[in-house]
Amino acid sequence: MNKELRNHAQKIIDAAIKDNLPDEAVRHALTGREFTGNLYLIAIGKAAWQMAAAADECLGGKVKEGLVITKYDHSQGPIANYRIIEAGHPVSDKNSYAAAQAALDMVSGLSSDDTVLFLVSGGGSALFEKPLVPEEEMQDVTKQLLACGADITEMNTIRKRLSAVKGGKFAKACPAKVVAVVLSDILGDPLDMIASGPAAPDKSLREQAKALVAKYDLKLSEKALKLLDIETPKQLDNVESHIVGSVRRLCESAAQTAAELGYEPHVLTDQLCCEARDAGSFLASIARTHADDGKALAYIAGGETVVHLTGTGKGGRNQEIALSAAAGIAGLDNVLVFSLGSDGTDGPTDAAGGIVDGSTAACLAEQGISIDQVLADNDAYTALGKADGLIMTGPTGTNVNDVAVVLIK
Amino acid sequence: MNKELRNHAQKIIDAAIKDNLPDEAVRHALTGREFTGNLYLIAIGKAAWQMAAAADECLGGKVKEGLVITKYDHSQGPIANYRIIEAGHPVSDKNSYAAAQAALDMVSGLSSDDTVLFLVSGGGSALFEKPLVPEEEMQDVTKQLLACGADITEMNTIRKRLSAVKGGKFAKACPAKVVAVVLSDILGDPLDMIASGPAAPDKSLREQAKALVAKYDLKLSEKALKLLDIETPKQLDNVESHIVGSVRRLCESAAQTAAELGYEPHVLTDQLCCEARDAGSFLASIARTHADDGKALAYIAGGETVVHLTGTGKGGRNQEIALSAAAGIAGLDNVLVFSLGSDGTDGPTDAAGGIVDGSTAACLAEQGISIDQVLADNDAYTALGKADGLIMTGPTGTNVNDVAVVLIK
Repeated sequence: MNKELRNHAQKIIDAAIKDNLPDEAVRHALTGREFTGNLYLIAIGKAAWQMAAAADECLGGKVKEGLVITKYDHSQGPIANYRIIEAGHPVSDKNSYAAAQAALDMVSGLSSDDTVLFLVSGGGSALFEKPLVPEEEMQDVTKQLLACGADITEMNTIRKRLSAVKGGKFAKACPAKVVAVVLSDILGDPLDMIASGPAAPDKSLREQAKALVAKYDLKLSEKALKLLDIETPKQLDNVESHIVGSVRRLCESAAQTAAELGYEPHVLTDQLCCEARDAGSFLASIARTHADDGKALAYIAGGETVVHLTGTGKGGRNQEIALSAAAGIAGLDNVLVFSLGSDGTDGPTDAAGGIVDGSTAACLAEQGISIDQVLADNDAYTALGKADGLIMTGPTGTNVNDVAVVLIK
Repeated sequence: MNKELRNHAQKIIDAAIKDNLPDEAVRHALTGREFTGNLYLIAIGKAAWQMAAAADECLGGKVKEGLVITKYDHSQGPIANYRIIEAGHPVSDKNSYAAAQAALDMVSGLSSDDTVLFLVSGGGSALFEKPLVPEEEMQDVTKQLLACGADITEMNTIRKRLSAVKGGKFAKACPAKVVAVVLSDILGDPLDMIASGPAAPDKSLREQAKALVAKYDLKLSEKALKLLDIETPKQLDNVESHIVGSVRRLCESAAQTAAELGYEPHVLTDQLCCEARDAGSFLASIARTHADDGKALAYIAGGETVVHLTGTGKGGRNQEIALSAAAGIAGLDNVLVFSLGSDGTDGPTDAAGGIVDGSTAACLAEQGISIDQVLADNDAYTALGKADGLIMTGPTGTNVNDVAVVLIK
């Protein structure tokens, strides 16, 4: 791989993640803030541990009771006397259900003078759950939605109706004030969708939920179909919300670092949402057109692409973007493309994303690997692993979605 | 629809087509050119008539015999004493086969002192054909390739081996010199692929042809499989080629007109080749991000997208780009997206492409039309027709591929 480009990519990756860690964001939201009554803390999502740790640092001993709900291996140790629960993601498991129940139990006896500081980050949809249908059906519905390529908005529209905590229902069940501090992993920062909006008035309508059943031919029980017909809370007077991070900032960070490295940065979009492999093809076609412009260019596209599964391999949307782009930039010795999930875990893999240059396709071809076939198998992880093409960051502690970058030197 | 944006789009469309008409290009290639021996003219492709007419005008009475092979309704009347044959496109028919045979008959008795002026434009693959397998199988193979979403490069790799004229075989069968003047409709202008390269040394390999049979699970006869195993000509000493037009010029024309109208133009790519609906989504996500930048912007992407058929409706790749973008720009009153095939016929329709703005999605929704469903049905033509969203130019006489433009005012 082109060492200079690889080195620049790494600097952009490191800075983009660092600039978007939740610690600073939480500190900024809480500094100087006073709370009346008793203060409780509940943090949910992949960034829950960092947000809780930063909040605890700000609030000193003021938190009476704390609960941190995050993904497996995402806790970094004890925080004060907080309870920490790790749970399943992207599919909820028994710990997700126990976690939601623990949160409901914690708030059930509070008064309207108390405050629950509710720190929300992406992943909360799966990690924080109390299903109103049998667990097996809830897991099955989630799997159906993932497999048919439903986007996260569509997934949440269904799941929040099958849940006792999503779609504003957690805040509705909470007698205390709720101060929500939200790290956004959804394009456009819709509060009712992030972590399925446990503390946000819900904008989705039951008609939409029912339309999705038809669209994706979802197999649901009678009970589930009846739940889809019950409307979610449209107003929550006990809630105050603050958004403290988003994919736009991630793109701006990448653009800033690229500029510092001498590239002319172009943020194309922070709302990318098409099929991952086609996003990779589009980015590669930009690279092919501008590879001979004679100047250093960085094209940046943030968002959250989708993958319609056609195979059973291992990968993630960022890895598919990179691998697809590898085919399109084959042979160009001055081009690199990477795509990165800011949370450090792309799909059900331990990689944060993929990174490729003009030599990647040939490297794979020499090993008898067809990029088309790998994409059809959804096996980008395996292929990129054989071409030095995986970005490994470990869990970063933030989750503000993805950014893809084309570097032309 | 936003009238100012619609008006600007029309100006960009008109100028981009006018700048890329074949007439001027042919004149430029032939002016001052002298030919020894007898001069013959054969023109193939959707722009054949215009190219032949312009050439005849340049060459006066010097052409001894002329043959023009174009798509139905693409002839605009007699040219000198030339024979004009109209034939099937995108699927070859009996006239395509008669046309190729007429060309072979015309050149069969020529000497090496004679010259065949060979004017080539897109569409020649279907219009100019002599199959080496039964006609029914040739048509069936073409239909299989169109239906599985093979790109034009892949289609030609197969079809040129089943043909007596493609893949350099026409020039090899011609005893005279061949001067090819080529209007490119393929990204990157590969001479061996444009019109399946009847007068170009062929770069595709029989191994690639056989790999495509496996990739798309093509059903072929024993005879066809044997033909795939015969290698095509790799050198042709009697041929001289000139490329006189391409999609790059189309993008540059669009950028220039947009700049004259006050937009800051950005040519993203002239090599777009991903799925049409995802290209539309990507372009819409760019529009959403930059709609509030407070300046007039034009994003331009040229190329040739693909459509993987999932339905049986009526449409074309440009119409799918526009319709898909309509969903993504819904509600933005200062954004318009259009996509246009420069030949004026997008897919098997009489529209050149599609044009949408922030009001299109609502206009369709009011009529009970779901954009997702229309795209699944590949029925963009019908839907766009109900939202004033079809671009109708009629056959333009040129064919240098497609251009999509996002206008933000």
